[in-house]
Amino acid sequence: MSLEEEVLAEIKPTQRDTERVHKAATELAGVLADFAKDRGIPGTPLLMGSVAKGTFLKNPEIDVFVAFPDTTPREDLEQWGLELGSVLDKPTRRYAEHPYTHGSFKGYEADVVPCYKLEEPSARMTAVDRTPFHLTYVREHLEEGQKDQVRLLKRFMKGTGVYGAEARVEGFSGYLCELLVLRFGAFRAVLEGARGWRPPVHLQLETGPERDFEEPLVFTDPVDGERNAASAVSLDSLATFIHAAREYLREPHRVFFFPEEPPVRRPSDLKRELESRGTSVLAVTSSAPDLPDDVLFPQLRKAEQAMVSYLESQHFRLLRSQPFLLEREWCILLEMEVHRLPQVKKHVGPPPWLSNAYSFTTKWESSSDLVAGPFIEEGRLVVEINRQEVDAAEALERAIPTLSLGKNLDESVKGGFNIYGGAEIVQRYREILSSFLSRRLPWRFRKA
Amino acid sequence: MSLEEEVLAEIKPTQRDTERVHKAATELAGVLADFAKDRGIPGTPLLMGSVAKGTFLKNPEIDVFVAFPDTTPREDLEQWGLELGSVLDKPTRRYAEHPYTHGSFKGYEADVVPCYKLEEPSARMTAVDRTPFHLTYVREHLEEGQKDQVRLLKRFMKGTGVYGAEARVEGFSGYLCELLVLRFGAFRAVLEGARGWRPPVHLQLETGPERDFEEPLVFTDPVDGERNAASAVSLDSLATFIHAAREYLREPHRVFFFPEEPPVRRPSDLKRELESRGTSVLAVTSSAPDLPDDVLFPQLRKAEQAMVSYLESQHFRLLRSQPFLLEREWCILLEMEVHRLPQVKKHVGPPPWLSNAYSFTTKWESSSDLVAGPFIEEGRLVVEINRQEVDAAEALERAIPTLSLGKNLDESVKGGFNIYGGAEIVQRYREILSSFLSRRLPWRFRKA
Repeated sequence: MSLEEEVLAEIKPTQRDTERVHKAATELAGVLADFAKDRGIPGTPLLMGSVAKGTFLKNPEIDVFVAFPDTTPREDLEQWGLELGSVLDKPTRRYAEHPYTHGSFKGYEADVVPCYKLEEPSARMTAVDRTPFHLTYVREHLEEGQKDQVRLLKRFMKGTGVYGAEARVEGFSGYLCELLVLRFGAFRAVLEGARGWRPPVHLQLETGPERDFEEPLVFTDPVDGERNAASAVSLDSLATFIHAAREYLREPHRVFFFPEEPPVRRPSDLKRELESRGTSVLAVTSSAPDLPDDVLFPQLRKAEQAMVSYLESQHFRLLRSQPFLLEREWCILLEMEVHRLPQVKKHVGPPPWLSNAYSFTTKWESSSDLVAGPFIEEGRLVVEINRQEVDAAEALERAIPTLSLGKNLDESVKGGFNIYGGAEIVQRYREILSSFLSRRLPWRFRKA
Repeated sequence: MSLEEEVLAEIKPTQRDTERVHKAATELAGVLADFAKDRGIPGTPLLMGSVAKGTFLKNPEIDVFVAFPDTTPREDLEQWGLELGSVLDKPTRRYAEHPYTHGSFKGYEADVVPCYKLEEPSARMTAVDRTPFHLTYVREHLEEGQKDQVRLLKRFMKGTGVYGAEARVEGFSGYLCELLVLRFGAFRAVLEGARGWRPPVHLQLETGPERDFEEPLVFTDPVDGERNAASAVSLDSLATFIHAAREYLREPHRVFFFPEEPPVRRPSDLKRELESRGTSVLAVTSSAPDLPDDVLFPQLRKAEQAMVSYLESQHFRLLRSQPFLLEREWCILLEMEVHRLPQVKKHVGPPPWLSNAYSFTTKWESSSDLVAGPFIEEGRLVVEINRQEVDAAEALERAIPTLSLGKNLDESVKGGFNIYGGAEIVQRYREILSSFLSRRLPWRFRKA
């Protein structure tokens, strides 16, 4: 049995699994139809997602959309959609372009999502409303034998850390995996295609794009040429997939499908590692607003970037940074090469022949911050002055309330934030610190 | 009495001074003529320099050239030149394009310089051989009243630290001061001209250059259009002069002519200042070969640059550096913002789609220097590896024997060198450290 056959044997639902999930899905659709009928809600349940397309792995999520006439006021659609969601167990509200409900049903994770029923995929609509057309397209084009190829590709994407269009991953959606198999024919053929990719990559089925896309990977949505079905894929996710494809084809291994998690290290090991790296790690944390990951994660990335840019503008040198979203708080780890700078800094002014040379010298001559100079270096006036910020942690503490971190994180920070150094990070955030320090491509841990 | 009249009263030789120096110079020429006659040396003494041109300050140096027929073999010219130099007191050999003798005569500093007697300034000759033509040119063109203007300009150049074409200064020669007064008419007019300069600056008298010059200041030599009489002037000397001219014209002050030397600071003050700057100063020193400043200084600058480039290539950040030439040793001060770096460093590799991606990952995967990674960042493979050099002083110690510092300094370093840190620099090199730390434009010390 080949490696891929072996993997497939592990991930493919059995006949029994399939029957069970179909039964549960059909039942959920029935419950929703009855609920709608009872309350006079004009929505029709439609089974969507991988279960409907037959490309699901074991223990899939059940997606049921509820389609409303396109004349339904948006307010009503949202209200009714949430009411319908109450049929799930442990329902929680989530947001895409409409609010929807996540919960469970008969032991499966499940979503109930309201959408507009449209006649034409090219009609103006949200991503959600387009989903039923994706289902139809995949059903009509994906051959029976290709379903397992989609399963292998999804598992490979999961294993290499690039599966999912959500903000936390910025990777490949299930639909994009299906399109890739349609485009190349099979799992291996997708990887062989990816081996030759060099971003930006443009892919299509029968029809090309109807506008220009800027993203590193463009796969023209076959149901709507104005949409890039790969718009969520970041450059790093794309590069990771290309690299994984090349390495897998060179030397196939099950670790690409089932990566080994590195163990969480012991506090004493983490302390020793921090010391031997010789860097300085800071953790900026605050409470996480009660909002979906897809709302918070882009803000976390923005906040990370704002902190990095600020520190670099103050000449602290960063080695790495990474945002983490925990249960009730967020945490940005910043690892610095240089976290303390001397009191004095060089300030380069204009050449003496420019008109602002006089104001430069008189300004600094009369400043209590002047340490040495002015003198001339490489044809320019130079002064040495007192640096405003000599310590990265103190600088961050002062700057964070003034940085633009994104709407919800700005509020979170107003409620208070903490900056922790090495020992406290080991104590409070052992798991994420361990994962941060042992960062590698997921399939590389087999050799560790 | 105006400021400039006051200055002139201090610097202009009295009638008596002038008679005394002329007497001494004539006597020296006579001694040399007799010496040549006695030994059958076919050289004719010629009085040169500021004494001959009437532009000398108090206590001038007496320059006597000895002109030989252009058929004289170079060996004989050099040999005879040095024999003639023995008429001076305390004669020492120096080098320009020919060796010559520096010493003293009747209490004046004096040079005896052999040269070829040429009919035409455009004849192929060395800078030295051109000097007699400069003398003739200045004598024929400089008006009596302009001589004091040259004196003021020379004193201004001295006071602002840009007087002298020697390698240590890279500034304005006496001849260039004379040409500037010829070009603009008077001291103030030179400064008014300089106020509008923006390098590269091109100046000429009646004839323009006969070739392209690259230097920041070009003053076509009126006796030879193929020579730039300002070729020694560095960008920094030019910029300093422009700045001094602008500031002087805005607010004239005798400090521009007679700058106040900052006092050499006490060891305890220096230690405190080093501490409050928060930087790390290193002194690299070795014995100075017994060679003229003009030979050693360019090598010192080259050595300084080689050390700075090396340290920057290893990611240590420099604030400042400066070479010093002492009695028997040379010393390069290097002031670092960051002199210790963490053990780990980031090493950015190719994007995964380039052909060398595989060799990059396999190389580092099997390296004992790998600390973390490979992972993907901004579309490129990245590893974190052990840094080779974490301490600037240790790095320099290892690197200096491999750097190219210039012929004579390379030899000096082979004989051994030292690297000193803060406390030892205070102890051993107090004066240069004091001057290094209090670096300012010379005329700015009045306010200190």
